[in-house]
Amino acid sequence: MDQRLSLITLGVADVPRARTFYEALGWTCDTDPAMGVAFFQLGGIVLAVWDRAQLAEDSTVVDRGGFGGVTLAYNVGSPEEVDAALAEAEAAGATIGRAGAPTFWGGYSGIFVDPDGHPWEVAHNPHWKIEPDGSVRI
Amino acid sequence: MDQRLSLITLGVADVPRARTFYEALGWTCDTDPAMGVAFFQLGGIVLAVWDRAQLAEDSTVVDRGGFGGVTLAYNVGSPEEVDAALAEAEAAGATIGRAGAPTFWGGYSGIFVDPDGHPWEVAHNPHWKIEPDGSVRI
Repeated sequence: MDQRLSLITLGVADVPRARTFYEALGWTCDTDPAMGVAFFQLGGIVLAVWDRAQLAEDSTVVDRGGFGGVTLAYNVGSPEEVDAALAEAEAAGATIGRAGAPTFWGGYSGIFVDPDGHPWEVAHNPHWKIEPDGSVRI
Repeated sequence: MDQRLSLITLGVADVPRARTFYEALGWTCDTDPAMGVAFFQLGGIVLAVWDRAQLAEDSTVVDRGGFGGVTLAYNVGSPEEVDAALAEAEAAGATIGRAGAPTFWGGYSGIFVDPDGHPWEVAHNPHWKIEPDGSVRI
């Protein structure tokens, strides 16, 4: 297998609501709503929101609800940008899990939790490089 | 917020075991094991494996175990490549959730589940384009 990944699907309770949340972050999606899913092109990968029960069945796993050990992260260039992104997410309807603050690994980060309980870390990692196209390099 | 994502962290029971699994897929990682985490550069994003309890605490969520509504996908160029990647994953220690087969959305896919229960769909989606660098376009 090549060292890459194509798609991340987040299971949600209500696809239109989840789509509205991510659109409220300023993201765009042109999926026909009749498809019952919404795809967001994120650089070279795709983020999808889809019915959680259907996703669990399609993924051949049992879903007992709650967190499943996956956290997404959005990296930015400075602590100030972390605070600004967390404020944008909160305005879009996210819950702030923890406000921006220095981290044990030498960066600065905070957490927002989307309306379906999916946590996102917003981070400034001074050890990683963010390219002009938004990709990150270790 | 820009329309992008930087990092996906998978919570795992045993970081060295998880690292070994992803390395057995043919992936490389140069993280110092003493860091207690392993980072894999996947194109313009990073995949990390880290202790699941620490990840839940850091992500400000309660973890009751099991699936949490997130499925990753690895897209390839043909049904034959789906079957080959599933065989590679099984040889690396994954469980096959479902073998490669035609899907309701007009493609062909199967599921493998990593040693920590994280499902990955391996898919051929004839409607999406895979660029030479491995990125996908809707």
